[in-house]
Amino acid sequence: MAEKKLWGGRFSESTDAFVEEFTESVSFDKELALYDIKGSIAHAKMLGRQGIIPKQDAEKIVEGLTQIEKEIKENKFTWKKELEDVHMNIEKALIEKIGDVGGKLHTGRSRNDQVVTAFRLYLKQQVSDIINLLTELQKALLEKAQQYVDIVMPAYTHLQRAQPIRVAHYFLAYLEMFQRDKERFEDNLKRIDMLPLGSGAVAGVDFPIDREFVAKELGFSQIMRNSIDATSSRDFAIEFLSNASICMANMSRFCEDMIIYSSSEFSFAELPDKLTTGSSIMPQKKNPDVLELIRGKTGRVYGNLVALLTIVKGLPLAYNRDLQEDKEPVFDTVKTLKGSIIGITKIVEGLKINKEKVESSAGGFALATDLANYLVEKGIPFRQAHHIVGSIVAYLVNQGRDLESITLQELKNFSSSFEEDVLNLLSPYTVADRRKSFGGTAKEQVLNQIEFWKRRLTES
Amino acid sequence: MAEKKLWGGRFSESTDAFVEEFTESVSFDKELALYDIKGSIAHAKMLGRQGIIPKQDAEKIVEGLTQIEKEIKENKFTWKKELEDVHMNIEKALIEKIGDVGGKLHTGRSRNDQVVTAFRLYLKQQVSDIINLLTELQKALLEKAQQYVDIVMPAYTHLQRAQPIRVAHYFLAYLEMFQRDKERFEDNLKRIDMLPLGSGAVAGVDFPIDREFVAKELGFSQIMRNSIDATSSRDFAIEFLSNASICMANMSRFCEDMIIYSSSEFSFAELPDKLTTGSSIMPQKKNPDVLELIRGKTGRVYGNLVALLTIVKGLPLAYNRDLQEDKEPVFDTVKTLKGSIIGITKIVEGLKINKEKVESSAGGFALATDLANYLVEKGIPFRQAHHIVGSIVAYLVNQGRDLESITLQELKNFSSSFEEDVLNLLSPYTVADRRKSFGGTAKEQVLNQIEFWKRRLTES
Amino acid sequence: MAEKKLWGGRFSESTDAFVEEFTESVSFDKELALYDIKGSIAHAKMLGRQGIIPKQDAEKIVEGLTQIEKEIKENKFTWKKELEDVHMNIEKALIEKIGDVGGKLHTGRSRNDQVVTAFRLYLKQQVSDIINLLTELQKALLEKAQQYVDIVMPAYTHLQRAQPIRVAHYFLAYLEMFQRDKERFEDNLKRIDMLPLGSGAVAGVDFPIDREFVAKELGFSQIMRNSIDATSSRDFAIEFLSNASICMANMSRFCEDMIIYSSSEFSFAELPDKLTTGSSIMPQKKNPDVLELIRGKTGRVYGNLVALLTIVKGLPLAYNRDLQEDKEPVFDTVKTLKGSIIGITKIVEGLKINKEKVESSAGGFALATDLANYLVEKGIPFRQAHHIVGSIVAYLVNQGRDLESITLQELKNFSSSFEEDVLNLLSPYTVADRRKSFGGTAKEQVLNQIEFWKRRLTES
Amino acid sequence: MAEKKLWGGRFSESTDAFVEEFTESVSFDKELALYDIKGSIAHAKMLGRQGIIPKQDAEKIVEGLTQIEKEIKENKFTWKKELEDVHMNIEKALIEKIGDVGGKLHTGRSRNDQVVTAFRLYLKQQVSDIINLLTELQKALLEKAQQYVDIVMPAYTHLQRAQPIRVAHYFLAYLEMFQRDKERFEDNLKRIDMLPLGSGAVAGVDFPIDREFVAKELGFSQIMRNSIDATSSRDFAIEFLSNASICMANMSRFCEDMIIYSSSEFSFAELPDKLTTGSSIMPQKKNPDVLELIRGKTGRVYGNLVALLTIVKGLPLAYNRDLQEDKEPVFDTVKTLKGSIIGITKIVEGLKINKEKVESSAGGFALATDLANYLVEKGIPFRQAHHIVGSIVAYLVNQGRDLESITLQELKNFSSSFEEDVLNLLSPYTVADRRKSFGGTAKEQVLNQIEFWKRRLTES
Repeated sequence: MAEKKLWGGRFSESTDAFVEEFTESVSFDKELALYDIKGSIAHAKMLGRQGIIPKQDAEKIVEGLTQIEKEIKENKFTWKKELEDVHMNIEKALIEKIGDVGGKLHTGRSRNDQVVTAFRLYLKQQVSDIINLLTELQKALLEKAQQYVDIVMPAYTHLQRAQPIRVAHYFLAYLEMFQRDKERFEDNLKRIDMLPLGSGAVAGVDFPIDREFVAKELGFSQIMRNSIDATSSRDFAIEFLSNASICMANMSRFCEDMIIYSSSEFSFAELPDKLTTGSSIMPQKKNPDVLELIRGKTGRVYGNLVALLTIVKGLPLAYNRDLQEDKEPVFDTVKTLKGSIIGITKIVEGLKINKEKVESSAGGFALATDLANYLVEKGIPFRQAHHIVGSIVAYLVNQGRDLESITLQELKNFSSSFEEDVLNLLSPYTVADRRKSFGGTAKEQVLNQIEFWKRRLTES
Repeated sequence: MAEKKLWGGRFSESTDAFVEEFTESVSFDKELALYDIKGSIAHAKMLGRQGIIPKQDAEKIVEGLTQIEKEIKENKFTWKKELEDVHMNIEKALIEKIGDVGGKLHTGRSRNDQVVTAFRLYLKQQVSDIINLLTELQKALLEKAQQYVDIVMPAYTHLQRAQPIRVAHYFLAYLEMFQRDKERFEDNLKRIDMLPLGSGAVAGVDFPIDREFVAKELGFSQIMRNSIDATSSRDFAIEFLSNASICMANMSRFCEDMIIYSSSEFSFAELPDKLTTGSSIMPQKKNPDVLELIRGKTGRVYGNLVALLTIVKGLPLAYNRDLQEDKEPVFDTVKTLKGSIIGITKIVEGLKINKEKVESSAGGFALATDLANYLVEKGIPFRQAHHIVGSIVAYLVNQGRDLESITLQELKNFSSSFEEDVLNLLSPYTVADRRKSFGGTAKEQVLNQIEFWKRRLTES
Repeated sequence: MAEKKLWGGRFSESTDAFVEEFTESVSFDKELALYDIKGSIAHAKMLGRQGIIPKQDAEKIVEGLTQIEKEIKENKFTWKKELEDVHMNIEKALIEKIGDVGGKLHTGRSRNDQVVTAFRLYLKQQVSDIINLLTELQKALLEKAQQYVDIVMPAYTHLQRAQPIRVAHYFLAYLEMFQRDKERFEDNLKRIDMLPLGSGAVAGVDFPIDREFVAKELGFSQIMRNSIDATSSRDFAIEFLSNASICMANMSRFCEDMIIYSSSEFSFAELPDKLTTGSSIMPQKKNPDVLELIRGKTGRVYGNLVALLTIVKGLPLAYNRDLQEDKEPVFDTVKTLKGSIIGITKIVEGLKINKEKVESSAGGFALATDLANYLVEKGIPFRQAHHIVGSIVAYLVNQGRDLESITLQELKNFSSSFEEDVLNLLSPYTVADRRKSFGGTAKEQVLNQIEFWKRRLTES
Repeated sequence: MAEKKLWGGRFSESTDAFVEEFTESVSFDKELALYDIKGSIAHAKMLGRQGIIPKQDAEKIVEGLTQIEKEIKENKFTWKKELEDVHMNIEKALIEKIGDVGGKLHTGRSRNDQVVTAFRLYLKQQVSDIINLLTELQKALLEKAQQYVDIVMPAYTHLQRAQPIRVAHYFLAYLEMFQRDKERFEDNLKRIDMLPLGSGAVAGVDFPIDREFVAKELGFSQIMRNSIDATSSRDFAIEFLSNASICMANMSRFCEDMIIYSSSEFSFAELPDKLTTGSSIMPQKKNPDVLELIRGKTGRVYGNLVALLTIVKGLPLAYNRDLQEDKEPVFDTVKTLKGSIIGITKIVEGLKINKEKVESSAGGFALATDLANYLVEKGIPFRQAHHIVGSIVAYLVNQGRDLESITLQELKNFSSSFEEDVLNLLSPYTVADRRKSFGGTAKEQVLNQIEFWKRRLTES
């Protein structure tokens, strides 16, 4: 009765149907199938090399696994829930294909080290892909920066116009953020790229296995040094979810900007039709749905992070079945993050900036800081200068006037330090180009940064 | 080119294939299909009754929808991703089936009010189901309480033995928790059970619709009073996720208890073979996987709550596409919560308590509080009594002795107030039955509670 | 050495100084002081009434506690970290004041039931206060709605102009949301308003206590029925944190709206100077900091919710010291939520809507839906009508024209069903007033809602 | 009236008292005071060197700041809420001390770059401290491993006894986890250690500042390349909160283990009196409160992470006041994390392992895997061997017998491959020492790991 399970020896009752359904993982962990096979092939080769199983048996196993791999790739493999997980499905198929010798594959390993090996192989690949996608996004931002280096727009703080900046400067800000995201993923890789296989269920393996060989076959740079840790730690996956969360947060900020910039009131940015969608009822609508979805999906990725953090909280050593729940949050995050990066990249590529609108919004009171700094250069302490210009702003606002409309005489009424040359300041281009500090928005600085990134992104 | 979308009129380019894939929701929102049809049928009937569309058209629409409903139920309906969502899929199928008249169904409504109507219908049903499942779980706990009313076990605080309790008292504690969970879901229902349909895209509807009729047809108790709110609020769903999180937390505590009680060291509880699973490598293992998975899935539900909370944070009014992300967390939570409640119910039903083990652990130092209270009854202030008994415990621990081994003489060495009758206290049964306060663990109190719940659970 | 602790009897070493510092809670739980005293007074009275302690002792205790209460209120009480928590501080002070008889106060109770009693008393008061603050906010929204019932503004979906609405309708949307928030808090109260005292450490009490009397004294409507549950459950607090999170989320949406509406580009709303702040460097800035802070503090409250959910996950029964961490998240949330509601109320009261700006933005393509509905009334199926109007929008956008500029002849080129009367539709006021469905934005409907709320808010 | 604010120039009303209270941050950001002064001194020196302000003015400012620093260190500085934040408090004090020349300090900088500079200086210091504390913890674990290398205990999976391991192997597992935690903090440092000062409010600075000089003065390795990014990004802080969360999760697992191991039923571990606390009512209790609190505080740190993630979600560029909420979660996390690491270190140092209990639990069915492997070595495929031993276990469990009690004859009844030498396997020491694979629990392997860590931890 209890026979069909591979571990059924000590059981007198067969598993309850509900339990079978509730505990199965093959419906989602088949995502790991090819990585599991890769791990099994390396393991089988090693078993043969070390004489733990006869060489011919190892060869048969490798052959059988290779066939199964092909079937899976061609979508011809039948997954069975009653076989619990991807690993048991493949092992059972192997035994069906090559006979009892297939049962020798599990010599010297356990599902506990097997599953986390496949998981690490999978995540190593995904994180590498994500890093590449981020580079593509950076390249799109760089190109946009180059395209718009000659136009100014207002920078906002508190969503109030603050100071004029070059549009290129705006795009480069995101390029920097995604650079740190990439570096976080690169650091993460160091902790993913470690071989757990050879740790057994928890205590290590009592066959003369060769972990160095397996690590080399699978391309792992390090071998985990403690079998308990190897089978029960998932910090590498939480770190991934955290990095993904931060990256989504950065993207959500870009989405927010673009959604606001695409409103009729701002009209700073226009998205191509093909990247927007319409309304079922309002014929005029052209909605930035991709941006909204990415902003919304940020929640999804945060949720995945919280899920895995919760799972490991207070979990005793070593492996517990709770850890089966580590996979779906990671799979979902990989899919969401990749899609979102691709989506943002397409948006950046397709985006048009409305020169007239951004330019005309970049002037006015956004130039006030420079008036104050003008006074500072004339020897007035900054705090006083700030106060004088504050009064000028209040004076103009009360009259419904903008800063450019002020006359030299009026300025002099507020401070005798104002002279003719102050009027040159009343242009967003002049003002932007005054910010020549390293990292500032002056054209020369922005061009330096563009050059820096051109070199750096072609290197990587 | 841009024609295939139902909203394509103003668009000059067709949607990018990636965007189509990225923005589609039919892969998951088909879960709402039958609720969407239910809503559409009520809407069509109303349109006919009010003369907004000809009665015969309304009838044709209802007929067409009924056929589609049947196809969906029989799994014969083909879902198409390029049609975006469940609603567009069904509407397109309707038009194919009954011709252009099908296009009249969308008169006087928008996807914004349509989708949230289906979502509310769905959730109302699910929450009712969950309440029923919780009642079943309570009944299982009550039965277990009745079965074990005559056995004592130690209650733990800080996972240290604290005081003896009746096993029934332990099970009733969880019964209480799940009662509050149920009440939270019942309160939640009041805020789910509100009709949004008739709110249009955001501003209401300019046809003479009859929302009272629709509400009655669909069984909604209230009609939402503000169209902006109706189309853009999701607090009812967050409330559900929060209630589910609390319920999972309560279940996770039970799982933790049972996992600890099933360890060899405790051996308090035994799970039936059919509700446990084995190890791929350790033949002796009988693992409480269902309990571990439920404990782990708590993280999943917390994550879903965080996801939706994040989505609505800082979201401007009214509908934004971010809200499409409201569904998967809710669907996943419904599935997880139902499965977990069923799982716990099965565990409770199958559970065996090891009388000898729990009984023998319930004595010893767990009786110390009562020694102190004995002294209080003799007139010693509680704080002094506590201190005296603390010293007795230290004295015995140092000698490796348990409390029952103490002699009257030894006791008298610590306080002259100890007399012969103190020795009666040295039994967990006596001690448990001394706690006669309402809600205490004395047998008479526990029996009262069992009676209370018997009545209450049969009523509901 | 180990004597100074009230529980030090069995200990041979005194507590490590670090441990004392690390485990103390008096630095934050003194927030509960007055509630703790209230609970202790009721308990002492009951002990006297029941003859568990002599009546005169009970009177002395009540008197002592009353004096301590006064000292605390007058800020004259000295809190000591080495006395661990608020309860021990007060008890020690009592003993110092009235002598050893003070030690009798702890008869028949435990810190486990004592602390959660004070916590429930505190939260009951706070939630009542919060409900009242929400009513004040609703009143401010209602007044603003009345003030602006005659002005139209655009409703946004996807932050794109969707349809014209009355400004009053916008404010009423938030009024509805806060109503549900209030109701959630009211439901929460039912589960807060339960007496745990009399449950002892975990198993109940072995003195003839009278819990009914204590409940009445303290104003609790219900008595907890299970001592294990009473001392170890915190779901009432998580529910509070969840309700607070939803309420913060709703407020964050209002903040987001107002921040966007206060931008130069929108200029829909103006905040009074006294509710905004300036920049240290940009003299022109007038920043909506209160709105931004509330939006930001949403994260803080979400974090508090996650904190407590995490704490109870997988926590075995019954009381564990982890639960000491339940207080700070609740205290911080109470403070944050109250401040945020007051802040929003002040903002609503001080807010000015710029009539010209909102009115002029409410027309244009936001009227397109009604053109389509016009065609529907002429017998064209909705989906076709939508398509025709979509083409009209595209035609005008390409020419840089707005909807109001179209001529009848041009309309007829798209559909012969357009007739003279269509031109009446091209006003946001006409269009808004067409949405006469219940809950719609037509003036008559909005006035109905205002009446409804006037009655309802004066009742409450 | 509106004059007292440093930015009050354009304001006609003074700030509302509530707003002042609600928006102030000095009550918590004074934690940054010394870092703010450090940043200001470097800035002032640079202004003088570059001739942006007269050298003597710079010297006066540095002198004034040095005095203020002294006052703060000596707790003589008076913080004023009405001055908003730590920066304004210090600047105002400076002006009071040295006169109007103090107002020149803010030349060429903004609060936006100033605050994040202090924040980064603070966090850089804290993270370094945390890394050192983690090394201390690792050393304590290493010492414990050395102390207990000769004793075996059971390793648990699913909280069921799995296989015997050396106690040293258990402690080394945590040593590995904390190593990865350290490495994450080290990687984090790279992204903290970047100078934002010189970015102005958002667009850079229009004075000829020298950021290289400031970076060198402050010990920053990198200079931020984009002023918008520098003033508005907080990913370095989220990364810190995430690393702290993972570290707390790892500690929570250790706490859980120790709480379980300290239960009467396990009695594996004993904590010294001075690290435990007692009960107010149960004289026998010796509770592992420190462990419970750390486990509970895990929730607090998770909550802080969620708080900051929520804050930045969908936040438009550049600085928004929401970001003021970044500090408390970080301060609270630093304090909690440091305290928790110190707490765990003390626990590890004080911990005693009960040799008899762990040893006797390490045998029995925990040896079953090796029986199966024995059969594999005799040529039986692993899956069959597993099944045979499963049946043996069931056979013995039914008779209430343990594995060591089996006779050779009985074994032969299950498989003829069993021979005399199998009986040697029935000892946990033999079995543990069979796991000679790299990372396994055999004594030689464990000693190798101890040697490895001895070298590594003395190097660092």
